[in-house]
Amino acid sequence: MNIKLPSWNDTSTRQAILDFVAKVSDPNNTDFVPPEERISTFDNDGTLWCEQPAVQGGFIMQRLTDMANKDASLRKTQPWKMAYEKDTSWINNAVDKHYNGDDSEIKVLLGGLGKSFADMSVETFAAMALDFFKHARHPKYNCSYLEVAYQPMLELLDLLKANDFTTYIVSGGGRDFMRPITRQVYGIPPERVLGSAPTLNFKAGDQGAHIMRGAGLDILDDGPAKAVQIWDRTGRRPILAAGNANGDIPMLQFAGGKDRPALRLLVHHDDAAREASYTSGAEKAVKLAQEQGWTVVSMKNDWKQVFSFQNSKKS
Amino acid sequence: MNIKLPSWNDTSTRQAILDFVAKVSDPNNTDFVPPEERISTFDNDGTLWCEQPAVQGGFIMQRLTDMANKDASLRKTQPWKMAYEKDTSWINNAVDKHYNGDDSEIKVLLGGLGKSFADMSVETFAAMALDFFKHARHPKYNCSYLEVAYQPMLELLDLLKANDFTTYIVSGGGRDFMRPITRQVYGIPPERVLGSAPTLNFKAGDQGAHIMRGAGLDILDDGPAKAVQIWDRTGRRPILAAGNANGDIPMLQFAGGKDRPALRLLVHHDDAAREASYTSGAEKAVKLAQEQGWTVVSMKNDWKQVFSFQNSKKS
Repeated sequence: MNIKLPSWNDTSTRQAILDFVAKVSDPNNTDFVPPEERISTFDNDGTLWCEQPAVQGGFIMQRLTDMANKDASLRKTQPWKMAYEKDTSWINNAVDKHYNGDDSEIKVLLGGLGKSFADMSVETFAAMALDFFKHARHPKYNCSYLEVAYQPMLELLDLLKANDFTTYIVSGGGRDFMRPITRQVYGIPPERVLGSAPTLNFKAGDQGAHIMRGAGLDILDDGPAKAVQIWDRTGRRPILAAGNANGDIPMLQFAGGKDRPALRLLVHHDDAAREASYTSGAEKAVKLAQEQGWTVVSMKNDWKQVFSFQNSKKS
Repeated sequence: MNIKLPSWNDTSTRQAILDFVAKVSDPNNTDFVPPEERISTFDNDGTLWCEQPAVQGGFIMQRLTDMANKDASLRKTQPWKMAYEKDTSWINNAVDKHYNGDDSEIKVLLGGLGKSFADMSVETFAAMALDFFKHARHPKYNCSYLEVAYQPMLELLDLLKANDFTTYIVSGGGRDFMRPITRQVYGIPPERVLGSAPTLNFKAGDQGAHIMRGAGLDILDDGPAKAVQIWDRTGRRPILAAGNANGDIPMLQFAGGKDRPALRLLVHHDDAAREASYTSGAEKAVKLAQEQGWTVVSMKNDWKQVFSFQNSKKS
């Protein structure tokens, strides 16, 4: 385990993290927090691994394409049409419309996605996700999707584990898509992965008892839902929370509480050379971070290395 | 830890438990299950602690009485009226009507209960539950409610922990009511307690960020919902599941799966002398246990001792 954050530059950000972990772990410090209360929560896409393009997007496109390949009648219907024709302009347009208050296309997208993964057992879906991670290659980095986690964040997870923190992933992405690989990628077991999820139904019959995926959405784990789910599933407030977007604000605000210290990390994508540079979808979070004194992690300035497959270099 | 089940008589039930735990923990056994997959799930009321009268019932009555004492206008309205007048016939009648298909009174009850614990932060509610457990006495046994867990089941939890099982409580009762005391009573931390729960809302303001309880019910954790929640919150199937009522059937059915062994325990209340004798609400479960070969735990025959405050005696 790399618990000394070797892929971080020697900046005030790195020092703030080391200082916080040291003080809450020190029984002689007034900010000491007992080990069982050292809860940390991390957003996934854009915080623990890259989100441009979205990892789950690759999985979804593959499933839609597979379905359209098998069933010609789907090829003229969205969202299978765009997958079959490898034309993602429709999906970008649907998202743009959504942000402008028109949900007509996004509903077609979500409805199609719901149907594409419905009426199968959760274990069948897990096997499908595992198969994707085993074979698919990341379009930008041409590596396995299992390798696109940020090396400095992996080291931070190690540091927290070494100091008896219990870490949860709290993702806007699909919970059951991530669970099969979070232990391998992050050292985090499935029960500590929270995320968006479909309706689930119990079915008992001659083939045994199964949990089946429905076509609807049960949890959209973004914004206030992140804070609510953290309480709902853990009965705790985190003392360390990390995100990168507006949807992570409530989780960051919920960290700490009346008699607890808190470290709030906002990963800022400002590294066009090694990863990407964007604030779209993070405007409010960046503003609040300045106002509230949250700790902003600059990928460009704070990280020696972004991915394990890139060479380490001093900045 | 009492990992040899000393409060259990030397019966085939005790042996079935010891044999199951031994085989799944033995790397040389064909039924070996890796430690991280050794998930066990227990119902709470009637399985881990006594349910006649319901522990949470005492908490609810106290809250309703407190509210009626403070606000005279509530005293003529149900459910505060029955609490203020200490007349529980109304509540029994409401439950009877419910089982006969008439939900009119039960809706009044649930609506009143929702309001009685709404619009407070989850932390305020947790403090209220803790206060109840600190002061209230059990009406039948005249002991603390913290002492009404079944001693043989506490030993079973210890046995499982010693064999690297991860145990979850999956209760029809209120999740946030139990969480503050499950570590003390059962050695189970709050994040491994599943149960019924109200709607929760995130609120951020000058007083900091809080999760507030709503008046509605988000999860009624009984029947199929138990199996669904187990998957939803853990991403696993249990290999050992224990319950005592019809509402536990789906959880027991979900245990094991295609290539996993499973032990399904059904606690049978047949001990009028030391606890209670009833099958009401467990008729289907008892029948299924016989048909499917589930392991029935007879309190009368399999337990040397029911509560730690009762003297141990050989049967």
